[in-house]
Amino acid sequence: MGRIDYLHDPDAPPANSVVPSVVALVQNDAGQVLMIQRSDNGRWALPGGGHDVGESISDTVVREVWEETGIKVEVVDVSGLYTDPGHVMKYDDGEVRQQFSICFRARPIGGELRTSNESTQVRWVDLAELGTLDVHPTMRLRIEHAMDRTRTTPYIG
Amino acid sequence: MGRIDYLHDPDAPPANSVVPSVVALVQNDAGQVLMIQRSDNGRWALPGGGHDVGESISDTVVREVWEETGIKVEVVDVSGLYTDPGHVMKYDDGEVRQQFSICFRARPIGGELRTSNESTQVRWVDLAELGTLDVHPTMRLRIEHAMDRTRTTPYIG
Repeated sequence: MGRIDYLHDPDAPPANSVVPSVVALVQNDAGQVLMIQRSDNGRWALPGGGHDVGESISDTVVREVWEETGIKVEVVDVSGLYTDPGHVMKYDDGEVRQQFSICFRARPIGGELRTSNESTQVRWVDLAELGTLDVHPTMRLRIEHAMDRTRTTPYIG
Repeated sequence: MGRIDYLHDPDAPPANSVVPSVVALVQNDAGQVLMIQRSDNGRWALPGGGHDVGESISDTVVREVWEETGIKVEVVDVSGLYTDPGHVMKYDDGEVRQQFSICFRARPIGGELRTSNESTQVRWVDLAELGTLDVHPTMRLRIEHAMDRTRTTPYIG
């Protein structure tokens, strides 16, 4: 399903829905970051997705990372809450979802890399390469917050 | 509107909705905790409520504490995420909401205590008295997590 992000855009359509979602910064022992190239917009992103009724938010992280990357993870902690009403996402079916995203740190505990219908590439990305990839500014911010070990409390925005 | 909490109850109705909500542990300089007696079930609780489209999660905290207590606050940090699918709340209108609550620490910056239609009493509660009040077990857990200064990262449950 196609998706268009609007960030502080005066032409953005008004939001009509809020669905809690997650993204996860998963780092392996070499410090590489698990990333996917999204099939809907071609950009690189942390794996993640929407919370489903019947699961805890940790369940959502584990399920979404597994679905999108083939990697099994366990949640370590929370790095940020991203709930800027100026960031909305419009979907093909008419839904305009206001951002409500929680970013977690997680560690890999098994599985093997594979793509899914939501990801055309899935890779462990070297930190040196991270800056060269096409990453949406809001996603890059989450990565920076999650990798900033000087933060003692989650970002709240 | 009446509300019934079900906690790991085999007779609980299935959830049909998830709405992000907040509660806030607000402490004054004397260490007292801002609490309300809820008009819907008579129990004592931290102020809080549901997130609205168009606001950030910090906006929600500030608005709900103001509406329910008359106190203006600013958000300090996050103390826990509470998303147990075994905790559902049934409302009179047929909605059965799965718990999705974020607990924040906040500090008072103005205002004066008053009640609202959601609260029959609003008070600054001494820590010594806290244990004697009728507080729902899930709310008590949030208070304990938020007051536990040995925690270095938010509770995730």
